[in-house]
Amino acid sequence: MQTLYSKTEEKDIAKYVLFSGDPWRVETVAKQLEDVRHIAFAREFNTYTGWYKGVRITVTSTGIGAPSAAIAMEEMYQCGMEVAVRMGTTMGLKDDLLGKLIIPTGAMREEATSKTYVPESFPAVADIGLINCMNKSTLENGREYVNGITCTMDGFYSQMRDSRLSEKMNRDIGQTFEALKKYNISAVDMESSCMLVLANLMGIKGCIVTMTTVLENLKDFLKGDARTKSEEDLCRIALDGLVIYDREVAGK
Amino acid sequence: MQTLYSKTEEKDIAKYVLFSGDPWRVETVAKQLEDVRHIAFAREFNTYTGWYKGVRITVTSTGIGAPSAAIAMEEMYQCGMEVAVRMGTTMGLKDDLLGKLIIPTGAMREEATSKTYVPESFPAVADIGLINCMNKSTLENGREYVNGITCTMDGFYSQMRDSRLSEKMNRDIGQTFEALKKYNISAVDMESSCMLVLANLMGIKGCIVTMTTVLENLKDFLKGDARTKSEEDLCRIALDGLVIYDREVAGK
Amino acid sequence: MQTLYSKTEEKDIAKYVLFSGDPWRVETVAKQLEDVRHIAFAREFNTYTGWYKGVRITVTSTGIGAPSAAIAMEEMYQCGMEVAVRMGTTMGLKDDLLGKLIIPTGAMREEATSKTYVPESFPAVADIGLINCMNKSTLENGREYVNGITCTMDGFYSQMRDSRLSEKMNRDIGQTFEALKKYNISAVDMESSCMLVLANLMGIKGCIVTMTTVLENLKDFLKGDARTKSEEDLCRIALDGLVIYDREVAGK
Amino acid sequence: MQTLYSKTEEKDIAKYVLFSGDPWRVETVAKQLEDVRHIAFAREFNTYTGWYKGVRITVTSTGIGAPSAAIAMEEMYQCGMEVAVRMGTTMGLKDDLLGKLIIPTGAMREEATSKTYVPESFPAVADIGLINCMNKSTLENGREYVNGITCTMDGFYSQMRDSRLSEKMNRDIGQTFEALKKYNISAVDMESSCMLVLANLMGIKGCIVTMTTVLENLKDFLKGDARTKSEEDLCRIALDGLVIYDREVAGK
Amino acid sequence: MQTLYSKTEEKDIAKYVLFSGDPWRVETVAKQLEDVRHIAFAREFNTYTGWYKGVRITVTSTGIGAPSAAIAMEEMYQCGMEVAVRMGTTMGLKDDLLGKLIIPTGAMREEATSKTYVPESFPAVADIGLINCMNKSTLENGREYVNGITCTMDGFYSQMRDSRLSEKMNRDIGQTFEALKKYNISAVDMESSCMLVLANLMGIKGCIVTMTTVLENLKDFLKGDARTKSEEDLCRIALDGLVIYDREVAGK
Amino acid sequence: MQTLYSKTEEKDIAKYVLFSGDPWRVETVAKQLEDVRHIAFAREFNTYTGWYKGVRITVTSTGIGAPSAAIAMEEMYQCGMEVAVRMGTTMGLKDDLLGKLIIPTGAMREEATSKTYVPESFPAVADIGLINCMNKSTLENGREYVNGITCTMDGFYSQMRDSRLSEKMNRDIGQTFEALKKYNISAVDMESSCMLVLANLMGIKGCIVTMTTVLENLKDFLKGDARTKSEEDLCRIALDGLVIYDREVAGK
Repeated sequence: MQTLYSKTEEKDIAKYVLFSGDPWRVETVAKQLEDVRHIAFAREFNTYTGWYKGVRITVTSTGIGAPSAAIAMEEMYQCGMEVAVRMGTTMGLKDDLLGKLIIPTGAMREEATSKTYVPESFPAVADIGLINCMNKSTLENGREYVNGITCTMDGFYSQMRDSRLSEKMNRDIGQTFEALKKYNISAVDMESSCMLVLANLMGIKGCIVTMTTVLENLKDFLKGDARTKSEEDLCRIALDGLVIYDREVAGK
Repeated sequence: MQTLYSKTEEKDIAKYVLFSGDPWRVETVAKQLEDVRHIAFAREFNTYTGWYKGVRITVTSTGIGAPSAAIAMEEMYQCGMEVAVRMGTTMGLKDDLLGKLIIPTGAMREEATSKTYVPESFPAVADIGLINCMNKSTLENGREYVNGITCTMDGFYSQMRDSRLSEKMNRDIGQTFEALKKYNISAVDMESSCMLVLANLMGIKGCIVTMTTVLENLKDFLKGDARTKSEEDLCRIALDGLVIYDREVAGK
Repeated sequence: MQTLYSKTEEKDIAKYVLFSGDPWRVETVAKQLEDVRHIAFAREFNTYTGWYKGVRITVTSTGIGAPSAAIAMEEMYQCGMEVAVRMGTTMGLKDDLLGKLIIPTGAMREEATSKTYVPESFPAVADIGLINCMNKSTLENGREYVNGITCTMDGFYSQMRDSRLSEKMNRDIGQTFEALKKYNISAVDMESSCMLVLANLMGIKGCIVTMTTVLENLKDFLKGDARTKSEEDLCRIALDGLVIYDREVAGK
Repeated sequence: MQTLYSKTEEKDIAKYVLFSGDPWRVETVAKQLEDVRHIAFAREFNTYTGWYKGVRITVTSTGIGAPSAAIAMEEMYQCGMEVAVRMGTTMGLKDDLLGKLIIPTGAMREEATSKTYVPESFPAVADIGLINCMNKSTLENGREYVNGITCTMDGFYSQMRDSRLSEKMNRDIGQTFEALKKYNISAVDMESSCMLVLANLMGIKGCIVTMTTVLENLKDFLKGDARTKSEEDLCRIALDGLVIYDREVAGK
Repeated sequence: MQTLYSKTEEKDIAKYVLFSGDPWRVETVAKQLEDVRHIAFAREFNTYTGWYKGVRITVTSTGIGAPSAAIAMEEMYQCGMEVAVRMGTTMGLKDDLLGKLIIPTGAMREEATSKTYVPESFPAVADIGLINCMNKSTLENGREYVNGITCTMDGFYSQMRDSRLSEKMNRDIGQTFEALKKYNISAVDMESSCMLVLANLMGIKGCIVTMTTVLENLKDFLKGDARTKSEEDLCRIALDGLVIYDREVAGK
Repeated sequence: MQTLYSKTEEKDIAKYVLFSGDPWRVETVAKQLEDVRHIAFAREFNTYTGWYKGVRITVTSTGIGAPSAAIAMEEMYQCGMEVAVRMGTTMGLKDDLLGKLIIPTGAMREEATSKTYVPESFPAVADIGLINCMNKSTLENGREYVNGITCTMDGFYSQMRDSRLSEKMNRDIGQTFEALKKYNISAVDMESSCMLVLANLMGIKGCIVTMTTVLENLKDFLKGDARTKSEEDLCRIALDGLVIYDREVAGK
């Protein structure tokens, strides 16, 4: 039976699923796959399935925010997903992170969607076996990584960035970051903690792989070729990480 | 300056903005406009601006969930939006709602994004002038309406519909609806309360216009031509409502 | 059967009920009625029923605060009330409100009594048909109105006004108002949101009609004849509004 | 300066203040006083000051609910009150309480007004010196007492008694009492915890003296002469208790 | 049957139980008893039972914090405890408290263990009969007492005292004390409110007896002989208080 | 400077610290160390420092519950701790866990002490490098492990086990376990989540190593030699794990 929103079926979906936030970036990742097939582009969910170094992998999108990310996770799980990896670019909260990968062990649950599943006290943790493989893939691709804690939030223009409304209301968005730094938080996004919680509840493996392309307040950011290469590396690291996982962990 | 996610600029956006949840349905609405121009399709935000009966109107999408709906509202407000109308189809919680329009006066804030702006005690209310125009437009288009209270939630498969995971966890989704019926709730969705709250904080006018195409548990639903006609009517009612508002309220 | 606190019976109460906070002001309103009968003055509930321009209307009091206002609403509902209108004078939070009517579309639920009925996320909204009639009545009586959002609170000397205790505890009451202004709040009181929520749960029509007789911090206030006339106008606007409602809405 | 609501001045108010919930019962208590003077009856606040066995005492009312009880406490404190005693009749939750006095050591803060002053964790406790005097007065007047814990709530018809609305919403009011019995609660009311908290914050002495005239669900209740005598005894016990306090505690 | 943690049995435990926070101080108290027997020292629970002036008394320890204090209370209750008295030294928040006993009527429940038993609104109150006896014992032993309100917290180095971590996180511990002083709080600890709540739920008698040996921020503290004598007095006051209670209250 | 409670100094404490809940079990662990020195046994904190396979290690105790565990962590951090490992026996919630090690990646924060440091949304996660070493040590010692999620609570007899009081209050402790099983929780304790949170905030490495010696409801448990050997293995696994960490991670 076809899923309600993403219009996918069990036979179309691989046990390894790579999630992008942006439905249009899925197109770029799909180009890395062989024998690739376009499954559907319904709502904000754009889905392809193909092969990478002998491993069958699905690439799809979550859209922005935990509510649609939860739907993406639920519908992929409905289709048999066993391993979920979210990949994306991110803004780092520490100066030495630029160009490095953040592969978090856990995330602050400052989004509310996961709380409709399980109390806030439940930790949004990534799978340790999957992290080890992604760490290894990062080094093999000539990059560095950190395994810190990130934070997921619901309000982009109320918590993470100034806007016409935040100025009208005299909100100081900077306070968010000040608090997060006290807690050693490496980066912020809008989907990760919800996806990690769901993976744990589903009893499947989940992790997050992100490339730091910009620092807080645009202090510094990757430009031109460095940026392009970083995004390509991110994509390859995630895919290679799944291949390592398939060979070293799942294969056992 | 271009907005961050939706890639729009002030000159591209009309003061009247019509929001669809589904980016692909924006295409259908855009066909009703004259002199229409495609602004951008970035992330889940698909935007057109054109004219309808002499009034300049922008149509765009929010994606699923309050976090992306808040971004859509914020970026349109950045571009000068003065009136925000969300349109969509909905599932009614009362038997006599099928084929009727629900134009709510308010919505339960069971999503968390709006709480990052203002305490939960703040009412998610629609603008009374705008409701009056939408009510009038409904009758002029030969349809009936109700002005009840709806409910907006963050968790689709945890609160509104069974899933493989809800069954694994033994969750009874039916309890959500039982509670909502005690409170006289007409329908549920994933964006409205957040959009109404933001419109009030921005000091602009906002309302929600939805067509009931299905009843709870699929007891009954609109089929074939009835469904097609209902969606066309919904679109025309929202557009005509804006024309009435422009003539009778804004024009004064 | 007589109600427990207000000592009223179904046969004594009209379907239209006008509520005053102050039991002694009920006396003044009762003078506007014909064929008026004093039902009871028990606890802080003073009740009269009579006729105004051919419509049967009950006037009663709530006392101060949401707990007693909820009792008043419940006991009038027990006696068959179908339309509930709270009237009173209020302190405006914006400079241009003096002498104008505030007929809110909704109210912040910063009182706790309504939360013993329904979660805080439920919006305290007024009935749109009733608001339209009160707006019309206001204009017909030569006054101006606004339809904003107000805020209802439980603590008068802890949230709305300095006292010997607030000074002993170093509380800055001004912070309450600063926050409310960011949210575009027009005025504050101690009963409205609870009454609006109960009306919605009961499935009856409810609204609030208040006259701004004073601005925040006594910046300015109505004096002498202007004050007297304003209170008389308020009373007439509420009564005439019910007559319009009876003719234009209920009569249909 | 006159207080805002109760229209009293410092010179009119004794340092000992006796509070009744019902403004009309104040009349009965006032008859026990000598050289009594009527200060004001404004809103639900009815105030007399006189002498009892050589001690100057004020009697006033709170109206129903914590918001107005807090106003009564604040305005009496504004006028110099040093000792606050609430007296009333109550419904007992244990079978052996009928005809006994409940003079609680503390009360559950299930009302929200006191939370606008101090976090919920703060205990609503009575003054031990005052309790000792009221206990002694009870025995001297030939009655028995218990010093348990009571519970104060905001919602009468949502938490303490069925109503037309509670039936419409399928609320089971009985659950409130079942829970309270597990916690050894003796009785319920709508003002006490707020008054005890405020007395502690003000640094004055406060306590509650109530007569159990009815058991839960009307299992049993005082009738005819027994009821009349009990109410008289309650009044005398409270007044005599203040005399004992004045002589034995304050006088030291 | 032996209790799980403290390894005690019903026959070993007296109905009067004196609790120390520190297991090693139990040794000192035990020296005051005659015919004393060491029951067990398991985990942080060190237990002796003996006789004092003809009354059989058990002395045991709670360890630090409400979770272990609740276990101590539960296991003593399992063994038949009827009266529970916690004794200890404390830091006073008011300047005139040095060398005085604080025998609180209640405590703020800023620990979470008691909330796993009963909602936070429930007051942590001491038994009035027991307080009266401890007050009397204090005077008979030539000391002064106050009967105020104290506060119990879970986080010593996050709420009550600076640490290497609090400095790293820029936490201002002083804010805790500033807030508490506004509420007239006399002293802080980590067990009392939980023990008082449990005593009330168990239907037994409980109270707290503490000696102020140090003022906030070490402004002043008891030294040398004054300190030694104060601790001896504390011990004797608690023991004598139980003897008074046994004779005057329980014996009746 | 000596720490306040545990009476330790920086020079006495190794950078690797092993924590036991029970102060008396510290004695057993200390026997595995060479050149061992007893630092102090103050309150429930019993501390030794010695050498194991060439690595300097401190062993100390936390007592029961998060409040005292936080003090132990804070004081060891004050003395220079860089790696914190909690070891203990535990009750498994799944049937196949008996005799296996649970080395959790994270823990539910159902204790409140860590919330006095950082919001509940922050994940209580273990350090991945440390987990990898403990996993390896487990296999090298001929045992099996799982890396699931556990749960830490404040109330032993209110949440985890029936008692005389839970029966008096009709509490169903079984509900706790039913809920936890839905969330895939492996085991429960009273300290872990707080210790993991603090390690993350301190910027040091932390993890938990526990041996499942009993299943829920005593379905099955390790007996006699199997039990003794399991406890010895647990001790050796934790110590060897630190040696592996020192060689493979810290040494790099």
